[in-house]
Amino acid sequence: MARHLLFDAETFRWAGVEQRDYKQSEGTQRGMGWRGLTRHTLVPGGSVAAGFEQRYFEIEPGGYSSLEKHEHIHVVITLRGRGRVLVGDRVVELGPMEVLEIPPWAAHRWVNAGDEPWGFLCTVEAERDRPQPVDDAEWEALQADPATAPFIF
Amino acid sequence: MARHLLFDAETFRWAGVEQRDYKQSEGTQRGMGWRGLTRHTLVPGGSVAAGFEQRYFEIEPGGYSSLEKHEHIHVVITLRGRGRVLVGDRVVELGPMEVLEIPPWAAHRWVNAGDEPWGFLCTVEAERDRPQPVDDAEWEALQADPATAPFIF
Repeated sequence: MARHLLFDAETFRWAGVEQRDYKQSEGTQRGMGWRGLTRHTLVPGGSVAAGFEQRYFEIEPGGYSSLEKHEHIHVVITLRGRGRVLVGDRVVELGPMEVLEIPPWAAHRWVNAGDEPWGFLCTVEAERDRPQPVDDAEWEALQADPATAPFIF
Repeated sequence: MARHLLFDAETFRWAGVEQRDYKQSEGTQRGMGWRGLTRHTLVPGGSVAAGFEQRYFEIEPGGYSSLEKHEHIHVVITLRGRGRVLVGDRVVELGPMEVLEIPPWAAHRWVNAGDEPWGFLCTVEAERDRPQPVDDAEWEALQADPATAPFIF
């Protein structure tokens, strides 16, 4: 049976897709805190043998994700609003429909610095490693650079 | 290095992404013909170890894809316009942001029955089997059903 998800443009939500917290718990390790971020799994990994998972994340104004790194990559496409992303030692502004690939082990954090919700698709492999906090050397280098310092908290 | 693709809303194209024909050749097997369809590979499979590939397809009014089936699944999300999809023994109308999953071995064909371009993301696994034409029994059953018959040519 083909899965077909209807979409409500008014609420920017897909019918039958549960809205969850970004993570099950608040991050307690350094940099792993997050705020105002919901997760909407459009196509779970492992469903009808998919080797990947298609999620939609939405970050409210002022919200942000954990500062983290991992081996698996992210492919992100903005569907609404605009975001600001720390990726490795760079900062990228991500407007509507723009695509960003987060390479393996690049430190990253998503921030909504605008005044409307920022929503984006994020594709990952179904089998993937667990996110880790950045290490001391990364933390210090990112904090020492004025461009990346605002992402380090 | 993080790949960042800028987007031009005017042309609905990503900077640096080559527009290719949907397939390298015209289909010569029954049902494998196609028309007015371009392929834009946003993130190739195998790039920075991605186990999946993120493509954007665009079908002009009157255009259509091959009628085919395969083991690997598709996850499709409409970004612009509207499409009509044969999937298995059903026909699905796919409006903006709607999501459709094509299960393994479901016969499928994308048709643009509207009057503006229909553009959609299509995620697949990087390693995947080759599309095949439908077999005689499928062809006949789909042609016998008035709902699916328009897709069988």
